[in-house]
Amino acid sequence: MAAPLLSSLCCRHSLRHCSPRRFARNDLSFFRSLSTSISSEKSLVLSHVNEDAGVAILAMNRPPANSLSLELNEAICTSLKEIDTNPKIQSVILASTNPTIFSAGLDVTELISPDDQRLPKFWNSLQQVYIDLYGSRLAIIAAIQGHAPAAGCMLAMACDYRIMYGGGEGSTVDGRKRKSHIPTIGLNETQLGIAAPPWMGQLLVRTIGFRPAERALALGTLFPPMEALIEGLVDDVITEESFSPSADTIHALEKLLPDPIRNQALSLVMQKAFQEAELYAKISPQARVASKLVTRSESLKDMIASREADTEYFCSFICQDTVQKNLKKYVEALKKKSKSK
Amino acid sequence: MAAPLLSSLCCRHSLRHCSPRRFARNDLSFFRSLSTSISSEKSLVLSHVNEDAGVAILAMNRPPANSLSLELNEAICTSLKEIDTNPKIQSVILASTNPTIFSAGLDVTELISPDDQRLPKFWNSLQQVYIDLYGSRLAIIAAIQGHAPAAGCMLAMACDYRIMYGGGEGSTVDGRKRKSHIPTIGLNETQLGIAAPPWMGQLLVRTIGFRPAERALALGTLFPPMEALIEGLVDDVITEESFSPSADTIHALEKLLPDPIRNQALSLVMQKAFQEAELYAKISPQARVASKLVTRSESLKDMIASREADTEYFCSFICQDTVQKNLKKYVEALKKKSKSK
Amino acid sequence: MAAPLLSSLCCRHSLRHCSPRRFARNDLSFFRSLSTSISSEKSLVLSHVNEDAGVAILAMNRPPANSLSLELNEAICTSLKEIDTNPKIQSVILASTNPTIFSAGLDVTELISPDDQRLPKFWNSLQQVYIDLYGSRLAIIAAIQGHAPAAGCMLAMACDYRIMYGGGEGSTVDGRKRKSHIPTIGLNETQLGIAAPPWMGQLLVRTIGFRPAERALALGTLFPPMEALIEGLVDDVITEESFSPSADTIHALEKLLPDPIRNQALSLVMQKAFQEAELYAKISPQARVASKLVTRSESLKDMIASREADTEYFCSFICQDTVQKNLKKYVEALKKKSKSK
Repeated sequence: MAAPLLSSLCCRHSLRHCSPRRFARNDLSFFRSLSTSISSEKSLVLSHVNEDAGVAILAMNRPPANSLSLELNEAICTSLKEIDTNPKIQSVILASTNPTIFSAGLDVTELISPDDQRLPKFWNSLQQVYIDLYGSRLAIIAAIQGHAPAAGCMLAMACDYRIMYGGGEGSTVDGRKRKSHIPTIGLNETQLGIAAPPWMGQLLVRTIGFRPAERALALGTLFPPMEALIEGLVDDVITEESFSPSADTIHALEKLLPDPIRNQALSLVMQKAFQEAELYAKISPQARVASKLVTRSESLKDMIASREADTEYFCSFICQDTVQKNLKKYVEALKKKSKSK
Repeated sequence: MAAPLLSSLCCRHSLRHCSPRRFARNDLSFFRSLSTSISSEKSLVLSHVNEDAGVAILAMNRPPANSLSLELNEAICTSLKEIDTNPKIQSVILASTNPTIFSAGLDVTELISPDDQRLPKFWNSLQQVYIDLYGSRLAIIAAIQGHAPAAGCMLAMACDYRIMYGGGEGSTVDGRKRKSHIPTIGLNETQLGIAAPPWMGQLLVRTIGFRPAERALALGTLFPPMEALIEGLVDDVITEESFSPSADTIHALEKLLPDPIRNQALSLVMQKAFQEAELYAKISPQARVASKLVTRSESLKDMIASREADTEYFCSFICQDTVQKNLKKYVEALKKKSKSK
Repeated sequence: MAAPLLSSLCCRHSLRHCSPRRFARNDLSFFRSLSTSISSEKSLVLSHVNEDAGVAILAMNRPPANSLSLELNEAICTSLKEIDTNPKIQSVILASTNPTIFSAGLDVTELISPDDQRLPKFWNSLQQVYIDLYGSRLAIIAAIQGHAPAAGCMLAMACDYRIMYGGGEGSTVDGRKRKSHIPTIGLNETQLGIAAPPWMGQLLVRTIGFRPAERALALGTLFPPMEALIEGLVDDVITEESFSPSADTIHALEKLLPDPIRNQALSLVMQKAFQEAELYAKISPQARVASKLVTRSESLKDMIASREADTEYFCSFICQDTVQKNLKKYVEALKKKSKSK
């Protein structure tokens, strides 16, 4: 008699990881309705709004890895605030213009031999990103096309729903076959010799539960997509194998969208994110926001109350000799790794 | 090497959804020991006690949908208090006399163009139902034979264990084949344009975990039985396919029990609920109650402390124009839906 | 399309329950590096350190069942403190010299007709064991070769990672086939007519989640290994079927280790525990300890703050007539059971 439940268990999960409508949106109506905001291609963040759907896209655009500098943090907050002022928008898709990296986390150059004045300012800007995302009146959907380690994982967890690319056969974008990659996600701070701050650690606890979070925090675990799905660190995993837009679709899109976001807009992860964003946008905003406060207001209040202490602790932790040594070792290892490629 | 765990996983779950002893109780000893309380058929709540087993049944009986009015709320509390005073009783089965609806949640007529005096009184009575169920010395087993949306889901979550009917082939009761139905359960408040109060939302968080609760609260998700089992919103799902009491059993029962509760008493959900109730009744009451306080006293204290603020917030939220419009729209939609049937 | 996830689900779990490297350590380098501490065979606790690996073993050694007396509690704390002062050690394996019992929990003789002076002292020593384990700078791995009921389960939950023996074919140790046994784990206090104290109940909530914890606390559930794995009460289950060290290995080991710990050192549970301990030992200690504080400092502070009240409540609860009767009944039942064997 095990079969019924088992198949229901499988169905439910398989629904989750291969459910998107197969680009019924080939007609491009969604993209046609996208209006490009004032952000230019060189902006740290690109944003587009689709007022008909009530959905906006906010794409991080700081090559090569969307590592979070003071400036990128501020750009995210500014862009989110802009979207927030538009009463027609209910949902935001948080994405990256980089097809293989969502965000690499903190910009390590902010941490090594840091400037006394800039370091607390930098940390404050990261806190602000969390506060603005986690407490937003908007429903925020993370479209995690690429890697999301450390603070990159925090960005995703601060959203309302997480969709991750699951690797697979490699996708065809712009008519060219894109090399397959398997992204990972997790708070891997201890691998760098540092620790996630309490509010970030507790965000992981809320997301995946106490026991798995404790272990993942201690070991700095990075989860591949399917493990992330099983642990609940992401809510959906998309394997893009079956997606190949027609030449017409691509041609039409070239006129509609600037390049950095176009590739992403065509990915199935983004398609699914859009469906999800529409789902949230249809709920009465008043009721949805009240529901969000039920689960988030308490922890946000605590975090804001301990904000200064958190900054002080972080700055003094980072400035320790051992920590500085660990960070430099980590950066050297990264450099060697990228040279050997 | 995946097989052992997998089969153990399946076994455990299959145990859960097809475990009840196959009506070994055909001898009706359980029902013979049921004494009908003073409640009449027309009471909003029917209660029966079986002192030998230490188990009572408390069945909501407000047609057509057990929607929670001020009066039903008060009747639940009164009946529970009555049972509580009987030291021989350790467990209660919370059930419904309606074979397809556990409880439809708040009586919406209490919310539309509400009376200034009655609205806070009504909300207080709902809070009291929660407090009395959640903090009861009795182990309470929810026998969820039918739908349990919104506050109906809250009733179930305030119990100690939840058993749900899983649909299936349809059951034979009173010799007649009962049409199959698949009940759903969940806090679907946002679908009505309102939000579950904090204490109800936090009850969902405790029951199914933070991340699934957040999403279910935002979207107002109603779960079918198997999904509810997988998420942990219910603890057991019973498919009644194999249950068909003999003519003798039915005949005997007709003499033993008044009609509204008889049908339910014969359901496998109720049978399983009775087994579960017996299990709890066998534990040392002192130890069991002390255990219950460990996990519940804190949140109950918080809820009681913020009770007045909760009432004020609820009343002012409900009285907003947009909310009133949403509620009226919802009732209109319901009316159309029932006419078209 | 269910297959990929399903197989990934199975793989992950099967990885967990049959993952240990197949005793690549047959060379005994690990055991050669073990230095026996001052503890003698007759000590209540045996400890060994391997400074090269950064790992220590702390094995409870109070026959017949490692039941926690005032003296065993104090010995655990003393031994842990000793290990703690060695800066080369980052991880500890908490084990038992008894191959079928991890720890039977509280020594019931401490509870029956207790001495007024000793009872609070005893309870304080148990609190101290929890505080020292749960808040330790060391990563502690529980090697649960045998039963772990009640406070034995608490010991395991206070560690950072739990590996349990899963029964199976029976293992070959010292060249002799060891009889198979299937250990169980859980807070079964209510089965004895007592209740786990709040801090222990809340530890279970953090470990397996609110809803499963509530039920397990109420019914006093003891979980067999696979159920414990599925619920998250342990993190890994090892079936020892394939382990049979060579005669040389055994011979070499006889010289290296005193008897009580030798058998355990050869078990696959211990092997896996050692691998896990090494994993934690490789993380930057500063970062690892900071991470541990993120999830544990709050609940530890609360527990310490309510320590006296907890002791008072426990002592008065235990001294109640009903509770004393329940305990005596339980001990009688145990005696009968062991006679009938």
